[in-house]
Amino acid sequence: MNPRTSFDPAFRVLFNSYYNAVGEKHPRPERGLLTRPSLHEVLAYRRHVDARMTTLLDDESAHTRPAAAALVTLGLNHEEQHQELILTDLKHLLSRNPLAPAYARHEPSIARRPTKPSWVDVPGGIREIGADDSAFAFDNEGPRHRALLQDCRVASHPVRCREYLAFMDDDGYRRPELWLAMGWDAVQAQGWQAPMYWQRAQERWMHFTLHGLAELDLDAPVCHVSYFEADAYARWAGARLPTEFEWEAASADAAIAGNFVESRALRPMAPNSDAEPGACSQLFGDVWEWTQSGYSAYPGYRPAPGAVGEYNGKFMCNQYVLRGGSCVTPRRHIRSTYRNFFPPEARWQFSGLRLARDPA
Amino acid sequence: MNPRTSFDPAFRVLFNSYYNAVGEKHPRPERGLLTRPSLHEVLAYRRHVDARMTTLLDDESAHTRPAAAALVTLGLNHEEQHQELILTDLKHLLSRNPLAPAYARHEPSIARRPTKPSWVDVPGGIREIGADDSAFAFDNEGPRHRALLQDCRVASHPVRCREYLAFMDDDGYRRPELWLAMGWDAVQAQGWQAPMYWQRAQERWMHFTLHGLAELDLDAPVCHVSYFEADAYARWAGARLPTEFEWEAASADAAIAGNFVESRALRPMAPNSDAEPGACSQLFGDVWEWTQSGYSAYPGYRPAPGAVGEYNGKFMCNQYVLRGGSCVTPRRHIRSTYRNFFPPEARWQFSGLRLARDPA
Amino acid sequence: MNPRTSFDPAFRVLFNSYYNAVGEKHPRPERGLLTRPSLHEVLAYRRHVDARMTTLLDDESAHTRPAAAALVTLGLNHEEQHQELILTDLKHLLSRNPLAPAYARHEPSIARRPTKPSWVDVPGGIREIGADDSAFAFDNEGPRHRALLQDCRVASHPVRCREYLAFMDDDGYRRPELWLAMGWDAVQAQGWQAPMYWQRAQERWMHFTLHGLAELDLDAPVCHVSYFEADAYARWAGARLPTEFEWEAASADAAIAGNFVESRALRPMAPNSDAEPGACSQLFGDVWEWTQSGYSAYPGYRPAPGAVGEYNGKFMCNQYVLRGGSCVTPRRHIRSTYRNFFPPEARWQFSGLRLARDPA
Amino acid sequence: MNPRTSFDPAFRVLFNSYYNAVGEKHPRPERGLLTRPSLHEVLAYRRHVDARMTTLLDDESAHTRPAAAALVTLGLNHEEQHQELILTDLKHLLSRNPLAPAYARHEPSIARRPTKPSWVDVPGGIREIGADDSAFAFDNEGPRHRALLQDCRVASHPVRCREYLAFMDDDGYRRPELWLAMGWDAVQAQGWQAPMYWQRAQERWMHFTLHGLAELDLDAPVCHVSYFEADAYARWAGARLPTEFEWEAASADAAIAGNFVESRALRPMAPNSDAEPGACSQLFGDVWEWTQSGYSAYPGYRPAPGAVGEYNGKFMCNQYVLRGGSCVTPRRHIRSTYRNFFPPEARWQFSGLRLARDPA
Repeated sequence: MNPRTSFDPAFRVLFNSYYNAVGEKHPRPERGLLTRPSLHEVLAYRRHVDARMTTLLDDESAHTRPAAAALVTLGLNHEEQHQELILTDLKHLLSRNPLAPAYARHEPSIARRPTKPSWVDVPGGIREIGADDSAFAFDNEGPRHRALLQDCRVASHPVRCREYLAFMDDDGYRRPELWLAMGWDAVQAQGWQAPMYWQRAQERWMHFTLHGLAELDLDAPVCHVSYFEADAYARWAGARLPTEFEWEAASADAAIAGNFVESRALRPMAPNSDAEPGACSQLFGDVWEWTQSGYSAYPGYRPAPGAVGEYNGKFMCNQYVLRGGSCVTPRRHIRSTYRNFFPPEARWQFSGLRLARDPA
Repeated sequence: MNPRTSFDPAFRVLFNSYYNAVGEKHPRPERGLLTRPSLHEVLAYRRHVDARMTTLLDDESAHTRPAAAALVTLGLNHEEQHQELILTDLKHLLSRNPLAPAYARHEPSIARRPTKPSWVDVPGGIREIGADDSAFAFDNEGPRHRALLQDCRVASHPVRCREYLAFMDDDGYRRPELWLAMGWDAVQAQGWQAPMYWQRAQERWMHFTLHGLAELDLDAPVCHVSYFEADAYARWAGARLPTEFEWEAASADAAIAGNFVESRALRPMAPNSDAEPGACSQLFGDVWEWTQSGYSAYPGYRPAPGAVGEYNGKFMCNQYVLRGGSCVTPRRHIRSTYRNFFPPEARWQFSGLRLARDPA
Repeated sequence: MNPRTSFDPAFRVLFNSYYNAVGEKHPRPERGLLTRPSLHEVLAYRRHVDARMTTLLDDESAHTRPAAAALVTLGLNHEEQHQELILTDLKHLLSRNPLAPAYARHEPSIARRPTKPSWVDVPGGIREIGADDSAFAFDNEGPRHRALLQDCRVASHPVRCREYLAFMDDDGYRRPELWLAMGWDAVQAQGWQAPMYWQRAQERWMHFTLHGLAELDLDAPVCHVSYFEADAYARWAGARLPTEFEWEAASADAAIAGNFVESRALRPMAPNSDAEPGACSQLFGDVWEWTQSGYSAYPGYRPAPGAVGEYNGKFMCNQYVLRGGSCVTPRRHIRSTYRNFFPPEARWQFSGLRLARDPA
Repeated sequence: MNPRTSFDPAFRVLFNSYYNAVGEKHPRPERGLLTRPSLHEVLAYRRHVDARMTTLLDDESAHTRPAAAALVTLGLNHEEQHQELILTDLKHLLSRNPLAPAYARHEPSIARRPTKPSWVDVPGGIREIGADDSAFAFDNEGPRHRALLQDCRVASHPVRCREYLAFMDDDGYRRPELWLAMGWDAVQAQGWQAPMYWQRAQERWMHFTLHGLAELDLDAPVCHVSYFEADAYARWAGARLPTEFEWEAASADAAIAGNFVESRALRPMAPNSDAEPGACSQLFGDVWEWTQSGYSAYPGYRPAPGAVGEYNGKFMCNQYVLRGGSCVTPRRHIRSTYRNFFPPEARWQFSGLRLARDPA
C-alpha cells in the first residue's frame, strides 16, 4: 500500500485551508455551503488515513525517518491546535442558535479558592527569550535570543469577571478616551457592551458556555475579550498589558499546571489553590492572555522550506501575541515560550488578560 | 389537547420567515448558522403537528369550520410551494460541493419527441383574466377582470438549449445592445457566460442536475436563466417575451399535462408527443416561463387581513411574473391563472422562456 | 471647420454616462474624484460647441437636415432634463453641508389659495394612450395604443404636507402592515422617519430647500417621498396610487399650467386658484406624481437604432412611472403623455403623489 | 478681541478629524460631499485665525506662556505634516483624472550621481533609542530608553527602481511564497502588478508625478510601495527590512540633508554625491523607509492629557513605522528619532525601503 495514495483527489482542494504551495483552495467564504459527507464516508476516510500512517511509521528506511518523524510530530502538535479550535468553534456555533443547546450536559464539580490579584516584581536586565532545540517547539518560538527588559510588575492572577464588571459599571464601553482608535471603531461598529457570550437576564449577567447558559462566576478570569477590550481595561485600571517578553520572563520557572481541557470544566475558573507569595499563578490554562506585543519574527527567524514554511511566518502582520493556553488547550501542548496570535478584534478565542505596570 | 399548544415557543421566532404581523423573526442572513435538531426532535415535532392538525380537523363546531378549512387549504397549497423550493434549494446546495453529489441516483427512462418551435396566433380583444371563486386560487390571481389584448403570436414551445447555444455562439453574453441596463450590469458583475449550472467540459456542455453532472440535452427547454437572459435572448431572436395576459390567453383552454415532479425526471425535457397544430404545447411543467409583466395587483385586489395578508401583496415590487410550473412542481398545484414571481436576476429557479412577437 | 472635430478626445470617455454603443465610460463611482477644469477651459469648451452647432445648423444640404434636426431636437429636450437634474442635484449636494447654504437667496412672493383635495370621477372604457407623431415626444411615450380602463376616482390635488403629517402622527413609519416588503426594509435600513430634507426643530418641522432651511408649508404638496412612502401613505389612507393610464386619462384635457421652474419658487406650493369642480388640478408642475405602474414598453415599442436607442428602453426594469413634472421642470418640457421613471427607493427627485380609488 | 472667539461654531464639528475629546465629528465618508466655501470666505477665515494667533502670541501673561508656546509649537509641527499630506493627496487626486493634469509645470534641473547600494555594518549592543527633551519631538518618539540590538548590516542606499524592476521581471507579484498572507490577499484583491502610479506605455514604464506623466528614472529610489511590497521585495532579495531601532542606530550620526520639499523636485531622485564609504546615504528625504517594526509605545510612554493626547498613542495598532522623511517633507521637520506610521497596505505615501540583513 502506497502511503501517499489519496482517498479522494478532490480532498486536496477541499482541505487546503491556506497553503499556497499546495495549490488551489476551496474558497473560504463558501465553506459553510458545503454539504456534509455521510458518517459512513467519514469513518472510511479515517480508516484510510490510519492505515497509511501506520504503513509510513512502520517503514524502517533510515534515510527518510528523521524528516518523517519531524513532520509527524509537527502534525500531531497541529492537530492539538485543531482540537482546541473545534471546541472554540462549537461554542460559537451553538451560541448562534436561540435555543442555546449545550455541547456537554454534565459539568464536573471542582473545588476553587478565589483569590484577589496582587503585584509580582519581574526584574529587568538581559534575558534569554524563545525556545532552544531541546524539545519540540513551533518555528515561531525561535531562535532563542537575548532581549533587554526593563523592571516591571506583573499581576499575580488574570483579571476576573468581578473587576471587569467594575470597568463596565464605570462606563468602560462608552468612554472613547480609554480605547485605541481602531478599538473604539470596533465598539461602535459591533455594538460591544460586554465580553462575547455575556447576556443580561433581569438583574444578573449570564454567559453562554459549552454547558449551556450559566450564571457568571465573578471569581473566574474574564474571557472572550478582544485585544482592544484588554487594552482598554488596562488603561482604565491605570496599568498596561505585559509584553510577551515580560510574560515569558514571569513564567520561565513556573510549572505547567492549571485548568486545561483535561479538567472537562471547559470554562475558566478561579484558581484551585492559594497563590504562592511573590510568584504569578494561573499563567497556564484558563485563558489565553493578550500581550501588548505585535506578532513578529524573532531575530534570525527563518521559515522552513516548502508548504510547512507557510505555517507561521506568513501571518506575522496585524496580529497580537497571546500566551499561556486556556481551559480548552491540552496540557501537554503548552509551554512558557509558546506564542499564539490573533487579530486584535478577535473575541471567539478563550482570551483574557493579566495586567502589568512600570515600577512605582 | 389544545390544538394551539406550541411545541416550543422559540419556534415562533425561528420559523417566522417574513410575517411582520407575527412578531420577531430570526435574522435571515443567520439562518445558515443554525445548528440542526436531532432526527428524534424532528420526528417528535412532526407528530406534535400531525396530532394537533387532526384535533383541529375533527372539531365539528360549525362556526369555525369554514375559516379553518380555508386556512388549512391555503396551508396545503403553501406546503406544495415549499416542496418545490426544497428541491430547488437542494440542487443549489449540492451544486456548491465540488464533489458534485447527486440527490437521486436513478433517473427514469422517458421517451421524447423533440420538436422545433413554430408560431401560434393568439387573437386580441377583450379577455377575462384571473381566477374566479369556483376553486382554490391564491389571492394574487384575482379578482377576475377584463383586459384588452392586441393580436400577437406566441411560440408553440419553450426555447430549447439548442437555440440558446446559438445565442451564446453569437456572442450573446458579450453584446451590451442586447441587454437591459440592469441585465448588462448583472452579466458583468456575476460573470455570466451561460445559464446557471452549465459548465464546459472539454468540447461539450455539461450541466449539474438533481441526478448529478449530466450531458446537456439540446432538445430540452433551456432552464435556470434569469429574466435578464430571457429578455436578451428574445431581443437577439427578433422577438419579445409574452405579457402574462397573452400567456394566460394562450393557455386558457390547454390541459394541465406535462413533465411535473411526479415524473421524477427532475429536469426539463423535450415534449413526449407531437405538437397539436395551431396550439401551444409544454405550457405546463418543464420550466417556469418568464413573462415581460411586472408583478403587480390586479384591479380591485385586496390582501386578506392579518398575517395571511402578508402572503403575496407585499412582494409586488421589482419582481416579474412567471407562468406554467416546472419539472419540480406538483401537477395538481398549477393552473392557467397561476402567478409565480421572482426578481429579474434570479436564476436558481427552474425558469426558462417562450417567445412572443407582434403580428407581421 | 468640421463640425465633428472634438474639443478633447478624452471627453468622449469622460462624458459618456451610459452609452455602451459609444464605447468606454469613466467609472461612475469615480466621477466624484475628478478634479475640475478651470473656468477658462469651461468657457472655451462652450464656445467650441456653440461654433460647431452653428456650423451644423447652417448647413443647408437637404439630405442630412431631417436626421440632424431630429437629433438636435432630441438633444434640446435632453438638455431640459439635465437642467432639472442640476437643480435636483444642487439641492442634494447643498443639503449635505451642515452649514445649509442656499442656492438662491431671494424667494419670490406668490399668492396661493390652499385647497382640500376632493374626488374626481374618471370613467372607464377603452382609451387612447400615449403620444402620436404630431409633435416631439420621447420614444417611450409611444406607440399610441388602446387600453381598457376600469372606472375610478382620482384626487383633485396631490397629497399635502398636512395630510402626510397625519400619517406620520399615526405611526405611519412604524407599522410594517402599511408597507411593501422592500419598502419596510428601506425604512429600517435607511432609518426613514419623514420625507427627505425634513428635519425636526424643537416643536416644528423644517425642510431644506433651494432657498435654504425653511418652515414647512402645510398646504403645499408633500415632496421628496419614495414610491414606497407614496404607496404606504395611500394604503394608510384607504386608497391607492393611480395607474399611469388613469393619470393620463385624468389629465388628457387639462391645460399645461402650474408651478414650474419659471416661477423661481423652486419648491412645490398650494395651488394659485380655486379648483374647477369635477376636474383635477395641479396635475402639472409642483411635484412629479408616483403612479403604481412599473416602467415598461408600450405594445409595439421599438427603440431607435444606435446610441440614441439606449436612451429609454434599456432602463425598463425595476422602475416606476411618475407623471406631470415638478417645480423645477421647464413648463414647455411637459405634456400629458410624458413618462418619467425612477427606482422605488428614490427620494431626491421632487416627487409626491395623488391618490386614486376604486368606485364605491 | 478674545483669541478664542470662533469664526463659525459649525467649524468645530466640520474640522474635527478624529478627536473624540473635542466632541462630534463630521462623518469621514461624507467629507467628499461637502460643497466648498468661496475664496472670499477662505481668506476671511485665514485673516480671522492670523489675528487671533497674533493676539495670543502678544499676550505676555507669564503663567500661560509655556503651555501656549508648547501648543503652538505642536501646532506648527502638525501643520508641517499636513503640508506634506496636501501634496500627497494632490498627487493622488490628480492621478484619478484621465487627463493627467500636472500640479507643477516646471521641473527644476538637478544634477545626480547614480550609485549602487552596498552593505554597511551596524554593530549590535545596548543603544539609546528615542528623543530626549533637548528639542521638540512628538510624544511617540519618547521616552528615550535603552534597547539591545544584534549585529546587522544595512544597505547604503534605498532600493532603486532598477532593482525593483528585476523583482517584477522575476514574477515577484505572482509568487505567493514571497508574500505575507495579508499581502498576497492585497495583491489579489487590488490587482497590484507594480508600484502605485506606475503605468506601462508600449515598451517603457511611465509614472504619474506632481509634474505629470514622466518616464521612470531607474536610478531613483522606488516609491509608493506598501509594507507588503517592501517585505516581499526584501524576501526575494534574500534580505529583510531593518527594525526601526536598527534604522535609528544607522542614522544616529548622519547629517539631516537630502532631497526634501525645498528642492521642488517633488519626486525621489538618485543621490547628488558619491556615497561615503562605510556609512549610509539618502537616509533623509527622497522616500519614507518602511521598517519591520509594528508601531507601538516605547517603555514608559504616556500620552498627554486631553485632546492633544489623541494625537499619536491611540493609533498604535496594526500600523508599521517608517523613518527618514521624503521628497515632500520639509527638511527641518525630520530627525533620526522621527516615527511616521501607516497601515501595511498604504501606498499613496512617498514610501520606499532600504534592505537589512543578518551578518554572514
